[in-house]
Amino acid sequence: MKIRYGGDYNPEQWPKQVWEQDYRLFDLAGVDTVTLGVFDWALTQPAPDVYDFSTLDAVVGKAVAEGRRICLATGTGAHPAWLAKAHPEVTRVDFEGRRHRFGQRHNSCPSSPVFRRLSAELARRIAHRYAGTEAITEAIPEAIVAWHVGNEYGGACYCDLCAAGFRAWLRTRYGDLDRLNDAWCTTFWAHTFTDWDEIEPPSALTEHWRGPDHTAFQGITLDYLRFMSDAMLANFVDEKAAIRESDPDTPVTTNFMGMYRPIDYHRWAAHLDFVSWDNYPPDDKSAARMALTHDLMRGLKDGQPFWLMEQTPSFTASRDVNPLKRPGVLRLWSWQAVAHGADAVLFFQLRANRGACEKYHGAVIGHAGRSDTRVFTEVAQLGAELARLGDATLGARTPARVALLFDWDSWWALELSDGPSRLVRYQEVVLAYHRALWDLGADVDVVAVTADLSGYDVVLAPALHMVKDDLAARLESVAERGGTVVTTFLSGRVDSDDNAFLMDVPGPLGGLMGVRVDEWDAREPSIVNPVLLPDGLSVEARLLFELVIPQGAEVVGTYQADWYAGTPAVTRNAFGDGHGWYVAAGLDQAGVSWVVRQVLDRHGLIGPYAEFPDVEVARRVAPDGTPMVFVLNHSGDAVDLPAVATGVDLLTGVRVEHGSPLRLEPGGVLVLAEPRSGP
Amino acid sequence: MKIRYGGDYNPEQWPKQVWEQDYRLFDLAGVDTVTLGVFDWALTQPAPDVYDFSTLDAVVGKAVAEGRRICLATGTGAHPAWLAKAHPEVTRVDFEGRRHRFGQRHNSCPSSPVFRRLSAELARRIAHRYAGTEAITEAIPEAIVAWHVGNEYGGACYCDLCAAGFRAWLRTRYGDLDRLNDAWCTTFWAHTFTDWDEIEPPSALTEHWRGPDHTAFQGITLDYLRFMSDAMLANFVDEKAAIRESDPDTPVTTNFMGMYRPIDYHRWAAHLDFVSWDNYPPDDKSAARMALTHDLMRGLKDGQPFWLMEQTPSFTASRDVNPLKRPGVLRLWSWQAVAHGADAVLFFQLRANRGACEKYHGAVIGHAGRSDTRVFTEVAQLGAELARLGDATLGARTPARVALLFDWDSWWALELSDGPSRLVRYQEVVLAYHRALWDLGADVDVVAVTADLSGYDVVLAPALHMVKDDLAARLESVAERGGTVVTTFLSGRVDSDDNAFLMDVPGPLGGLMGVRVDEWDAREPSIVNPVLLPDGLSVEARLLFELVIPQGAEVVGTYQADWYAGTPAVTRNAFGDGHGWYVAAGLDQAGVSWVVRQVLDRHGLIGPYAEFPDVEVARRVAPDGTPMVFVLNHSGDAVDLPAVATGVDLLTGVRVEHGSPLRLEPGGVLVLAEPRSGP
Amino acid sequence: MKIRYGGDYNPEQWPKQVWEQDYRLFDLAGVDTVTLGVFDWALTQPAPDVYDFSTLDAVVGKAVAEGRRICLATGTGAHPAWLAKAHPEVTRVDFEGRRHRFGQRHNSCPSSPVFRRLSAELARRIAHRYAGTEAITEAIPEAIVAWHVGNEYGGACYCDLCAAGFRAWLRTRYGDLDRLNDAWCTTFWAHTFTDWDEIEPPSALTEHWRGPDHTAFQGITLDYLRFMSDAMLANFVDEKAAIRESDPDTPVTTNFMGMYRPIDYHRWAAHLDFVSWDNYPPDDKSAARMALTHDLMRGLKDGQPFWLMEQTPSFTASRDVNPLKRPGVLRLWSWQAVAHGADAVLFFQLRANRGACEKYHGAVIGHAGRSDTRVFTEVAQLGAELARLGDATLGARTPARVALLFDWDSWWALELSDGPSRLVRYQEVVLAYHRALWDLGADVDVVAVTADLSGYDVVLAPALHMVKDDLAARLESVAERGGTVVTTFLSGRVDSDDNAFLMDVPGPLGGLMGVRVDEWDAREPSIVNPVLLPDGLSVEARLLFELVIPQGAEVVGTYQADWYAGTPAVTRNAFGDGHGWYVAAGLDQAGVSWVVRQVLDRHGLIGPYAEFPDVEVARRVAPDGTPMVFVLNHSGDAVDLPAVATGVDLLTGVRVEHGSPLRLEPGGVLVLAEPRSGP
Repeated sequence: MKIRYGGDYNPEQWPKQVWEQDYRLFDLAGVDTVTLGVFDWALTQPAPDVYDFSTLDAVVGKAVAEGRRICLATGTGAHPAWLAKAHPEVTRVDFEGRRHRFGQRHNSCPSSPVFRRLSAELARRIAHRYAGTEAITEAIPEAIVAWHVGNEYGGACYCDLCAAGFRAWLRTRYGDLDRLNDAWCTTFWAHTFTDWDEIEPPSALTEHWRGPDHTAFQGITLDYLRFMSDAMLANFVDEKAAIRESDPDTPVTTNFMGMYRPIDYHRWAAHLDFVSWDNYPPDDKSAARMALTHDLMRGLKDGQPFWLMEQTPSFTASRDVNPLKRPGVLRLWSWQAVAHGADAVLFFQLRANRGACEKYHGAVIGHAGRSDTRVFTEVAQLGAELARLGDATLGARTPARVALLFDWDSWWALELSDGPSRLVRYQEVVLAYHRALWDLGADVDVVAVTADLSGYDVVLAPALHMVKDDLAARLESVAERGGTVVTTFLSGRVDSDDNAFLMDVPGPLGGLMGVRVDEWDAREPSIVNPVLLPDGLSVEARLLFELVIPQGAEVVGTYQADWYAGTPAVTRNAFGDGHGWYVAAGLDQAGVSWVVRQVLDRHGLIGPYAEFPDVEVARRVAPDGTPMVFVLNHSGDAVDLPAVATGVDLLTGVRVEHGSPLRLEPGGVLVLAEPRSGP
Repeated sequence: MKIRYGGDYNPEQWPKQVWEQDYRLFDLAGVDTVTLGVFDWALTQPAPDVYDFSTLDAVVGKAVAEGRRICLATGTGAHPAWLAKAHPEVTRVDFEGRRHRFGQRHNSCPSSPVFRRLSAELARRIAHRYAGTEAITEAIPEAIVAWHVGNEYGGACYCDLCAAGFRAWLRTRYGDLDRLNDAWCTTFWAHTFTDWDEIEPPSALTEHWRGPDHTAFQGITLDYLRFMSDAMLANFVDEKAAIRESDPDTPVTTNFMGMYRPIDYHRWAAHLDFVSWDNYPPDDKSAARMALTHDLMRGLKDGQPFWLMEQTPSFTASRDVNPLKRPGVLRLWSWQAVAHGADAVLFFQLRANRGACEKYHGAVIGHAGRSDTRVFTEVAQLGAELARLGDATLGARTPARVALLFDWDSWWALELSDGPSRLVRYQEVVLAYHRALWDLGADVDVVAVTADLSGYDVVLAPALHMVKDDLAARLESVAERGGTVVTTFLSGRVDSDDNAFLMDVPGPLGGLMGVRVDEWDAREPSIVNPVLLPDGLSVEARLLFELVIPQGAEVVGTYQADWYAGTPAVTRNAFGDGHGWYVAAGLDQAGVSWVVRQVLDRHGLIGPYAEFPDVEVARRVAPDGTPMVFVLNHSGDAVDLPAVATGVDLLTGVRVEHGSPLRLEPGGVLVLAEPRSGP
Repeated sequence: MKIRYGGDYNPEQWPKQVWEQDYRLFDLAGVDTVTLGVFDWALTQPAPDVYDFSTLDAVVGKAVAEGRRICLATGTGAHPAWLAKAHPEVTRVDFEGRRHRFGQRHNSCPSSPVFRRLSAELARRIAHRYAGTEAITEAIPEAIVAWHVGNEYGGACYCDLCAAGFRAWLRTRYGDLDRLNDAWCTTFWAHTFTDWDEIEPPSALTEHWRGPDHTAFQGITLDYLRFMSDAMLANFVDEKAAIRESDPDTPVTTNFMGMYRPIDYHRWAAHLDFVSWDNYPPDDKSAARMALTHDLMRGLKDGQPFWLMEQTPSFTASRDVNPLKRPGVLRLWSWQAVAHGADAVLFFQLRANRGACEKYHGAVIGHAGRSDTRVFTEVAQLGAELARLGDATLGARTPARVALLFDWDSWWALELSDGPSRLVRYQEVVLAYHRALWDLGADVDVVAVTADLSGYDVVLAPALHMVKDDLAARLESVAERGGTVVTTFLSGRVDSDDNAFLMDVPGPLGGLMGVRVDEWDAREPSIVNPVLLPDGLSVEARLLFELVIPQGAEVVGTYQADWYAGTPAVTRNAFGDGHGWYVAAGLDQAGVSWVVRQVLDRHGLIGPYAEFPDVEVARRVAPDGTPMVFVLNHSGDAVDLPAVATGVDLLTGVRVEHGSPLRLEPGGVLVLAEPRSGP
């Protein structure tokens, strides 16, 4: 057992002599796992009544013959052309109201009965053929280590079938129209619905102006986002159930996309046996961002390890500018995934396409089929390193005492909102708070608002716009027992229907925070209001400035400019044995980091390398209890730092004594396993 | 009698216990007038054959019981969902050719017979129930002080019903196709129409490229703008006529939107009993712009006072960034409205919505229902101040000797034009000339090109692209009798069909201006041509540079750069006893202000505080002849200035002697009533 | 015989008294040629069964009576309104999938049978009436010197008729679906087509995202571009054949638009009897760009002289900002056209429109009909100058020893590609290499990749993304025999199906270049990597950086930054008796010019005025063998330079001795005819 290594492989695009070459190169690279059949629907079902497994048989058979493990896809991420021709309703209607015709991928209406029937049937037949007790060979079920359903679920459809699905979903949610009218505030602008059929999907043809974030009725749009997320989940569930008819055990997953707004992964996670995701960061300065995303993905299933299902070894293709990963980055980022909980490190893809839109997407094997490219060489080196590591990290858990709340409903509600500011972006606020933790070396679980918070010393809840159910009470409990809760401007504003709380801002968080917000100012990003923190530290606030009237809270930081100069911008409220911090303005990173540092410091959670910029520390604890510390140097320079524990570097086998000097080259990685303390 | 104070109020969104709270707060705030029922169609007519007045009865009844005056809306600004479902043609087809479905507001096709019938019927029934001799109680008709038809008319529809309406409108305008083909220059690009039915609304599917301002046939698009403005006016007229069946006297209005391009308010004004408008300036530096808009609104009906129907007490919600009005701004801008002719000061809205797209729009009463917010406090202070003022300003008139021409046709023609420059924007040109007047403290009437100009000493006609009917002759009369006319580049270019005059530019204005324009240069905004004015003053010109050959005019300013350096940029032509000034280039504000200062100076029209930046002066004369001077300090600093008249400050009752020192704090307002000179 | 002078003339828009005025002005201006009837379809065929030539008879008759030569249009560039009404399928469906209604121009679906039948019929009837042996008067056929079919072919249609046409075109190209599936890589994303009818035009509703350059299947989109270009060519061919029924001899053309991406003019050129084009450069700094475009147009038909069919005498109208041509520019640019091969210099247009979207487009005669405008004066001066020149340049050829490859397929493939960089634009790369030639005064033929390269010493092939057929071998031949071939980054990437070559980059060019590209980096334009060239010259590279491993080539320039500092950025490979240069990065103009200078220098091709910035030199050789040198001063300053030959300036008749000093004023032009050396 070891960390799985390999990635997407599409030999069906190539003649068989290429397959031979590929597997020789896979041997060189240490590739042990291949993801097969992700877009094979058109090959596997070439006509309505015809299933033809000859290609997939050969592809799967070859992998088994070569001794690889298989992540087998159901292949339903794109439907065949004949299906779109025969059933035009299987394609999507877009936000502009246009029925699409055959093209692209991720192109099926999730509500289409034909799509639902045929996609499940395809999954059923594939599972029956390759994984069931009647599989064509015995070796295949054994080789299959995971099911890959669909692909990167996302987008949206606005067709009449989805409209009908939406109405049914609403009936379930609201029961009757009175409740729905109340939830959506339909008295505003004469929107009272008198019949379910009057309800339309919110789109450019109905409630929206300018685009998907600009709606006349936030409640309708919010519910459509929830519905659409659920509709696609139903597609996943369809296929998983079909697989389970033949294969009751092999874990089933689909590849998520990190912080992907359209799908509420918290609503999905329970249905996946493990989480997997595709990591395509926006640029080469995204180490902290990737850490957040790994933590989010790990948090979806309560800390259970996940798979890094896709990453490019070199460059992407779909962006305006597709920069190359520098030497060492492929390795560094792969280890970062492991540090945050990955049990598999896979690439998209193993061999580059010849044509179409991904022909310039990076791959382990390029168009010339060489093994002496720089990229292939690095892939092979990492393969060897992973082989050396073996099973040490498999199944390990992150021992975090800090929780960061991440909430799709708050994300949606905040960014759909008209006012106070379109420029406040949920991800950016969350990123700043996570960045502070990352800089300070604190392990963190990024969790849903429904998560059990009883094990955490610190809970950060940035931009918690919507407060649902008993969340406020659970946050109060954290503070009562001595913990610290931090929240920010634009939190505690709306209930689960996106209606404003009829109380002082921050709504149900007001007691914990000990403040009320009387009003708020929004300004262009060029306008800065300095905030004075203790010890003369001045930081900058931008975009949003809430005017706070303390209701028991202590004033920590104050605005320095404008007519509200001298009023509170940051407060701390003693609550039970702990505290509630309220950050009323869009502080810069220095300001956010100052707040987080105070909080971590109180709980003794500042990591050992907090003073080393871009040196990342992450901890995991192996199933046998062995603590491991990952140290990664994301900076461009070598760093010299003292060992914080005694142990063995699993990548080199070198033993390290606590306090002894360590040198990490740029891109350097250390995986220090500490001896377990006695039983 | 006093200035009406209050605003939009939507108690139908709330349970009745909230209504009680509201009226107690209204009492505190001095709210005497409520606008009711603006979006109540879905409540009042919940089904095709059902009218249900129970909610509106309660809402209106409560207001009457609480002794308020009512501005009663017909509620047709948004149609109910059942109507869109039953009659899909009641929704609009947009510029892209897409039929919309139910959603948003201002969503009805103005040409739809169903909409026209049902909207008029709703107005008829409401008027009958609340305002007629058979009204449900006698007290209600008395309480109703105005009718509010529809809401913020605007947008456009491109459906087949509108196409048919357009053709009918064209038949009326042109009589026969030969005349139409000639007006539209259809020989160009093979556009000769041989049947009325061949004519399509100009849209993205027909004559337009890139967007609504880019058309292949300016004449078609211009006529469609005129038609659409008229089609919506017909909707207003429908409802007004229905109201008049029960209520022959109460004035009828609808809320305009200031400089709103799609609707030619000059074509509408005669049909309104008084003008009202909604003031949402783009930012907090808009004092001069608001002054222009107030002057424009007042000018629609020959100087008759108007209502400020809506303004926010704090912030808007629909913008990307919604800044807060600073302390004192609510008061200052309210008084500015009064200074320019408002007899009512109303807010949108009195209580904040809980949900949907205006939940973060500012309101007098916020979500927490407090009376101790800063905003509520300021509203209440203004309420008290208005109460103290009483009726002193009601019905007062502005004694302007300057007219500024504002012409929707020129606006449309200029901005639809291909060439010379898309960057020349009508509003910006007009704003610069008005700004010069504002800075110099000259009262101005902003009037239609059809207005009687015989009472003015100065007429400014910036960017008068289209010259219709006898306008050129009337402008010549102004100069002949000793007045001054100022016009600019891109004036006198086209006739009422948007066809170029077959004569030298500036067409029929050439005689008055004493110049001909041989050619013109357009440049990116980064390119500046300095213009040298007398006394060595150098100002900047941008965007458009006409090359002028004097035909009798005196050269006042000359270009300083490019191959036409030394040629005229500003000229003055003696005409009769007066002058015609021609400004051939896009001068900066300093240049425009220099020109306007010369003109005002000649006529003795420079105000007393011209040297005090951002101190606004406006005059009104009460019906009894009492002159009043409003002085408003828009600057951020206190200013000390001498009193320019002897009188009483109506806000404080303090008597002021001519020449005595006055101090105006930032945001300060003075309303100085001068004793009438003897009869 | 002389250079034709005149332009588009639309007297049908005017009453006949204006015609008289026009011809008097034409006399003054030396206008000898008028282009008539370009948009007359609606006049000529006012109803399905009615042809009415009365207007065109008068227009043509007047021109003949006035002794002018006629370029007669078929008038099919815009269809009549009645046609769109009667046959809605004659309008286009746009990229967004929207069926248009009547409007604009260039508005006909090229695949519409009705359009094809009626447009050909119109051409047939016009040719029969005016050009055949049965023409209405004998004088007319004689006056007609060229046929102008349609107008500025371009745009695209995505309707069902085009879909059917596309499928038929694909059947012809690929024969069977297996071949098509292979060419398009349809195994990717489940796109295997099992029936021709499943294929849809690639649009916003099918394969595209974001816009026309963003496609999921480059091969489909590329073929659609080819098909659409061919479909419009078929329209041209239809009309030409119809003309030929009556007129077997008069040359037939249509007006091209220079570097116009949608139409592959190389696929069209053989069908035109001569090339003509419309020159509307983007700004007044476009001298080099225009030179490239003239060279491209001349290269379409192997160096045969072309017509400058349209240029504005002053300004355009369709741009956001339409700057005025400064004094002398009209003349200078007209002579530049002649220098590069024009046998006609024509304007759009002779009299300005009154209305619609071109009313502010510059014209020889403005709205006031004056002959004393600056523009008219310059037009008349040029007319006189051309008259003096006579036939000296007619039919002359450019004696170029340098070829620049220009390839629409590479243009399309490069700009449709996902990855490496959307910021690399084909035109910009080509422009930089041509600019280097232009600066250095080397005559160049801009030719298709299928051109005979055997006569050239130097072949530049910038951004030759697609390498088709035997091109690589033909380029190798150039080097073998001692010539030099230069190519760049992103060359040699794909085959004619847009599939990557399964070999090292630059594919089949690798042998000639002696390099392999291992990988590549793309970066934002703000990121510069300096490239060090010999003699310490440092230039800048941007956007794309290929990492090169020499396979025999000599390293000429190296990167100076990033982790690949010191690796090759420019290489030269000895091949046969010549060289292959490879420029691996997006060099700035200084870098490109350095490379080109080395290459030209080796072949003795640097022009005489290479050190005079913005002084253009171009050579032509008259049919009788007389060499002519055109020298044009595009700089803003007068330049003094030595005569490089002995001869006579054809514009002044002044004799010039080799080596004697010459002075060229800003905008100055010299046409030096050298005496022929003896037979």
